[in-house]
Amino acid sequence: MNFPVDHIGIAVPNLEEAIAQYKKNFGFDLDVREVVASQKVELAFLRTENTLLELLTPTSDDSTLSKFLSTRGAGLHHICYRVPNIVSELKRLEGLGLQLIDKTPRPGAHNSLIAFIHPRSTGGVLTELCERRHT
Amino acid sequence: MNFPVDHIGIAVPNLEEAIAQYKKNFGFDLDVREVVASQKVELAFLRTENTLLELLTPTSDDSTLSKFLSTRGAGLHHICYRVPNIVSELKRLEGLGLQLIDKTPRPGAHNSLIAFIHPRSTGGVLTELCERRHT
Repeated sequence: MNFPVDHIGIAVPNLEEAIAQYKKNFGFDLDVREVVASQKVELAFLRTENTLLELLTPTSDDSTLSKFLSTRGAGLHHICYRVPNIVSELKRLEGLGLQLIDKTPRPGAHNSLIAFIHPRSTGGVLTELCERRHT
Repeated sequence: MNFPVDHIGIAVPNLEEAIAQYKKNFGFDLDVREVVASQKVELAFLRTENTLLELLTPTSDDSTLSKFLSTRGAGLHHICYRVPNIVSELKRLEGLGLQLIDKTPRPGAHNSLIAFIHPRSTGGVLTELCERRHT
Protein backbone atom coordinates (compact mmCIF):
# COMPACT_ATOMS: atom_id res chain seq x y z
CA MET A 1 0.00 0.00 0.00
CA ASN A 2 1.33 3.37 -1.05
CA PHE A 3 -0.59 6.20 -2.65
CA PRO A 4 0.39 9.19 -4.75
CA VAL A 5 -0.51 12.74 -3.77
CA ASP A 6 -3.27 13.50 -6.27
CA HIS A 7 -3.28 17.20 -5.41
CA ILE A 8 -2.60 19.82 -2.77
CA GLY A 9 -5.59 22.05 -2.04
CA ILE A 10 -4.93 25.77 -1.63
CA ALA A 11 -7.65 28.26 -0.61
CA VAL A 12 -7.52 31.51 -2.58
CA PRO A 13 -9.76 34.56 -2.49
CA ASN A 14 -9.47 35.22 -6.23
CA LEU A 15 -9.04 32.38 -8.70
CA GLU A 16 -7.99 34.48 -11.71
CA GLU A 17 -5.26 36.24 -9.77
CA ALA A 18 -3.98 33.02 -8.21
CA ILE A 19 -3.82 31.20 -11.57
CA ALA A 20 -1.87 34.10 -13.06
CA GLN A 21 0.50 34.29 -10.07
CA TYR A 22 1.34 30.57 -10.12
CA LYS A 23 1.98 30.71 -13.85
CA LYS A 24 4.25 33.73 -13.52
CA ASN A 25 6.08 32.63 -10.38
CA PHE A 26 6.49 28.89 -10.96
CA GLY A 27 5.40 28.14 -14.53
CA PHE A 28 2.45 25.92 -13.56
CA ASP A 29 -0.14 25.63 -16.34
CA LEU A 30 -3.86 25.45 -15.85
CA ASP A 31 -5.17 21.93 -16.34
CA VAL A 32 -8.91 22.33 -15.84
CA ARG A 33 -11.43 24.57 -14.06
CA GLU A 34 -14.66 23.39 -12.56
CA VAL A 35 -17.50 24.68 -10.39
CA VAL A 36 -18.65 22.19 -7.76
CA ALA A 37 -22.09 23.61 -6.99
CA SER A 38 -22.82 21.23 -4.11
CA GLN A 39 -19.72 22.48 -2.28
CA LYS A 40 -20.13 26.12 -3.35
CA VAL A 41 -16.57 26.23 -4.64
CA GLU A 42 -14.83 26.85 -7.92
CA LEU A 43 -11.65 24.86 -8.56
CA ALA A 44 -8.65 25.32 -10.83
CA PHE A 45 -6.15 22.51 -11.17
CA LEU A 46 -2.58 23.47 -12.01
CA ARG A 47 0.03 21.01 -13.23
CA THR A 48 3.34 20.78 -11.42
CA GLU A 49 5.84 18.28 -12.72
CA ASN A 50 4.73 15.44 -10.42
CA THR A 51 1.35 16.36 -8.91
CA LEU A 52 -1.46 18.92 -9.11
CA LEU A 53 -2.28 22.04 -7.15
CA GLU A 54 -6.00 22.53 -6.63
CA LEU A 55 -6.83 26.20 -6.13
CA LEU A 56 -10.20 26.59 -4.42
CA THR A 57 -12.32 29.69 -4.09
CA PRO A 58 -15.82 30.00 -2.61
CA THR A 59 -18.79 30.83 -4.84
CA SER A 60 -20.96 31.85 -1.89
CA ASP A 61 -20.43 33.67 1.40
CA ASP A 62 -22.07 30.84 3.34
CA SER A 63 -19.77 28.08 2.06
CA THR A 64 -17.46 26.17 4.37
CA LEU A 65 -14.55 27.54 2.38
CA SER A 66 -15.65 31.15 3.02
CA LYS A 67 -15.49 30.40 6.74
CA PHE A 68 -12.03 28.88 6.30
CA LEU A 69 -10.80 32.00 4.48
CA SER A 70 -12.28 34.26 7.19
CA THR A 71 -10.78 32.39 10.09
CA ARG A 72 -7.55 30.83 8.74
CA GLY A 73 -6.86 33.07 5.78
CA ALA A 74 -5.70 32.10 2.31
CA GLY A 75 -3.21 29.26 2.08
CA LEU A 76 -2.80 25.52 2.33
CA HIS A 77 -6.18 23.82 2.79
CA HIS A 78 -5.96 20.05 2.31
CA ILE A 79 -4.02 17.16 0.82
CA CYS A 80 -5.56 14.51 -1.39
CA TYR A 81 -4.25 10.98 -1.92
CA ARG A 82 -5.32 8.98 -4.97
CA VAL A 83 -6.43 5.46 -4.13
CA PRO A 84 -7.40 2.58 -6.40
CA ASN A 85 -10.60 1.71 -4.52
CA ILE A 86 -12.06 4.46 -2.36
CA VAL A 87 -14.84 2.36 -0.85
CA SER A 88 -12.44 -0.25 0.51
CA GLU A 89 -9.99 2.40 1.76
CA LEU A 90 -12.75 4.27 3.63
CA LYS A 91 -13.82 1.04 5.24
CA ARG A 92 -10.24 0.22 6.24
CA LEU A 93 -9.62 3.71 7.67
CA GLU A 94 -12.90 3.69 9.59
CA GLY A 95 -11.85 0.33 10.99
CA LEU A 96 -8.62 1.95 12.20
CA GLY A 97 -10.73 4.49 14.12
CA LEU A 98 -10.39 7.49 11.81
CA GLN A 99 -13.31 9.91 11.75
CA LEU A 100 -14.70 10.18 8.23
CA ILE A 101 -16.46 13.33 7.06
CA ASP A 102 -17.84 11.34 4.12
CA LYS A 103 -18.61 7.75 5.03
CA THR A 104 -19.54 7.02 1.44
CA PRO A 105 -17.79 8.67 -1.50
CA ARG A 106 -19.42 11.45 -3.44
CA PRO A 107 -18.79 12.85 -6.92
CA GLY A 108 -15.80 15.20 -7.15
CA ALA A 109 -14.07 17.12 -9.89
CA HIS A 110 -12.70 15.33 -12.98
CA ASN A 111 -15.39 12.62 -12.80
CA SER A 112 -13.77 11.30 -9.62
CA LEU A 113 -15.14 9.89 -6.41
CA ILE A 114 -13.95 11.71 -3.31
CA ALA A 115 -14.26 11.60 0.46
CA PHE A 116 -12.81 13.71 3.25
CA ILE A 117 -11.34 12.53 6.54
CA HIS A 118 -11.66 14.78 9.58
CA PRO A 119 -8.40 16.60 10.41
CA ARG A 120 -8.70 15.59 14.05
CA SER A 121 -7.99 12.03 12.88
CA THR A 122 -5.03 13.01 10.73
CA GLY A 123 -2.88 15.32 12.84
CA GLY A 124 -4.68 18.51 11.86
CA VAL A 125 -4.39 17.89 8.12
CA LEU A 126 -7.70 17.92 6.29
CA THR A 127 -7.26 14.81 4.13
CA GLU A 128 -9.12 13.82 1.00
CA LEU A 129 -9.13 10.50 -0.83
CA CYS A 130 -10.02 10.31 -4.50
CA GLU A 131 -10.57 7.55 -6.97
CA ARG A 132 -10.26 8.59 -10.59
CA ARG A 133 -12.69 6.76 -12.83
CA HIS A 134 -11.17 8.16 -16.01
CA THR A 135 -7.85 9.91 -16.29
CA MET B 1 9.82 26.23 -16.60
CA ASN B 2 7.95 23.76 -14.45
CA PHE B 3 9.02 22.36 -11.10
CA PRO B 4 8.11 19.24 -9.14
CA VAL B 5 6.77 19.38 -5.62
CA ASP B 6 9.80 18.19 -3.65
CA HIS B 7 7.81 17.81 -0.46
CA ILE B 8 4.84 18.99 1.56
CA GLY B 9 5.74 20.21 5.04
CA ILE B 10 3.48 19.16 7.91
CA ALA B 11 3.92 20.43 11.48
CA VAL B 12 3.49 17.71 14.10
CA PRO B 13 3.81 17.81 17.89
CA ASN B 14 5.26 14.29 18.12
CA LEU B 15 7.40 12.85 15.35
CA GLU B 16 7.27 9.21 16.46
CA GLU B 17 3.51 9.18 16.66
CA ALA B 18 3.11 10.94 13.32
CA ILE B 19 5.49 8.55 11.53
CA ALA B 20 3.57 5.58 12.92
CA GLN B 21 0.20 7.08 12.00
CA TYR B 22 1.17 7.80 8.39
CA LYS B 23 2.53 4.28 8.00
CA LYS B 24 -0.59 2.70 9.43
CA ASN B 25 -3.11 4.96 7.68
CA PHE B 26 -1.54 5.43 4.26
CA GLY B 27 1.43 3.05 4.01
CA PHE B 28 4.06 5.78 3.68
CA ASP B 29 7.55 4.59 4.64
CA LEU B 30 10.16 6.64 6.42
CA ASP B 31 12.86 7.82 4.06
CA VAL B 32 15.23 9.71 6.37
CA ARG B 33 15.25 11.61 9.66
CA GLU B 34 17.38 14.62 10.38
CA VAL B 35 17.82 17.27 13.05
CA VAL B 36 18.37 20.77 11.65
CA ALA B 37 19.94 22.44 14.66
CA SER B 38 20.01 25.93 13.15
CA GLN B 39 16.23 25.82 12.72
CA LYS B 40 15.55 23.99 15.99
CA VAL B 41 13.52 21.34 14.18
CA GLU B 42 13.65 17.62 13.65
CA LEU B 43 12.44 16.35 10.28
CA ALA B 44 11.19 13.01 9.01
CA PHE B 45 10.69 12.50 5.30
CA LEU B 46 8.06 9.98 4.24
CA ARG B 47 7.78 8.59 0.73
CA THR B 48 4.47 8.80 -1.08
CA GLU B 49 4.32 7.38 -4.58
CA ASN B 50 5.17 10.67 -6.31
CA THR B 51 6.52 13.11 -3.71
CA LEU B 52 7.63 13.36 -0.08
CA LEU B 53 5.91 14.44 3.10
CA GLU B 54 8.22 16.31 5.47
CA LEU B 55 7.04 15.98 9.05
CA LEU B 56 8.51 18.75 11.21
CA THR B 57 8.61 18.99 14.97
CA PRO B 58 10.31 21.63 17.12
CA THR B 59 13.32 20.71 19.23
CA SER B 60 13.00 23.83 21.38
CA ASP B 61 10.13 25.87 22.82
CA ASP B 62 11.54 29.07 21.34
CA SER B 63 11.66 27.86 17.73
CA THR B 64 9.55 29.45 15.02
CA LEU B 65 7.83 26.10 14.59
CA SER B 66 6.80 26.03 18.26
CA LYS B 67 5.08 29.36 17.73
CA PHE B 68 3.36 28.01 14.62
CA LEU B 69 2.07 24.99 16.56
CA SER B 70 0.84 27.24 19.38
CA THR B 71 -1.01 29.65 17.14
CA ARG B 72 -2.09 27.62 14.08
CA GLY B 73 -2.00 24.12 15.51
CA ALA B 74 -0.65 20.95 13.91
CA GLY B 75 -1.19 20.56 10.19
CA LEU B 76 -0.05 21.74 6.78
CA HIS B 77 2.94 24.05 7.10
CA HIS B 78 4.61 24.68 3.74
CA ILE B 79 5.15 23.47 0.19
CA CYS B 80 8.57 23.03 -1.39
CA TYR B 81 9.36 23.08 -5.10
CA ARG B 82 12.58 21.53 -6.38
CA VAL B 83 14.45 23.78 -8.78
CA PRO B 84 17.56 23.10 -10.85
CA ASN B 85 19.34 26.33 -9.85
CA ILE B 86 18.16 27.97 -6.64
CA VAL B 87 20.34 31.06 -6.95
CA SER B 88 18.94 32.00 -10.34
CA GLU B 89 15.36 31.24 -9.28
CA LEU B 90 15.65 33.42 -6.18
CA LYS B 91 16.98 36.22 -8.33
CA ARG B 92 14.15 35.82 -10.82
CA LEU B 93 11.47 35.73 -8.09
CA GLU B 94 12.92 38.74 -6.32
CA GLY B 95 12.85 40.52 -9.67
CA LEU B 96 9.13 39.72 -9.89
CA GLY B 97 8.65 41.48 -6.55
CA LEU B 98 8.31 38.46 -4.26
CA GLN B 99 9.50 38.91 -0.70
CA LEU B 100 12.24 36.41 0.09
CA ILE B 101 12.82 35.20 3.64
CA ASP B 102 16.22 33.86 2.52
CA LYS B 103 17.84 36.06 -0.11
CA THR B 104 20.68 33.61 -0.41
CA PRO B 105 20.21 29.85 -0.06
CA ARG B 106 21.25 28.01 3.08
CA PRO B 107 21.98 24.36 3.78
CA GLY B 108 18.87 22.20 4.25
CA ALA B 109 18.18 18.54 4.85
CA HIS B 110 19.52 15.86 2.47
CA ASN B 111 22.55 17.96 1.55
CA SER B 112 20.28 20.40 -0.26
CA LEU B 113 20.25 24.16 -0.61
CA ILE B 114 16.99 25.76 0.48
CA ALA B 115 15.33 29.15 0.72
CA PHE B 116 11.91 30.29 1.91
CA ILE B 117 9.62 32.83 0.29
CA HIS B 118 7.33 34.88 2.52
CA PRO B 119 3.71 33.68 2.45
CA ARG B 120 2.49 37.22 1.90
CA SER B 121 4.06 37.00 -1.57
CA THR B 122 2.53 33.62 -2.36
CA GLY B 123 -1.13 33.81 -1.40
CA GLY B 124 -0.62 32.78 2.21
CA VAL B 125 1.36 29.64 1.36
CA LEU B 126 4.77 29.46 3.00
CA THR B 127 6.85 28.38 0.01
CA GLU B 128 10.28 26.78 -0.01
CA LEU B 129 12.63 26.23 -2.92
CA CYS B 130 15.26 23.52 -2.81
CA GLU B 131 18.12 22.45 -4.99
CA ARG B 132 19.31 18.92 -4.44
CA ARG B 133 23.03 18.56 -4.84
CA HIS B 134 22.95 14.79 -4.57
CA THR B 135 19.86 12.65 -4.83
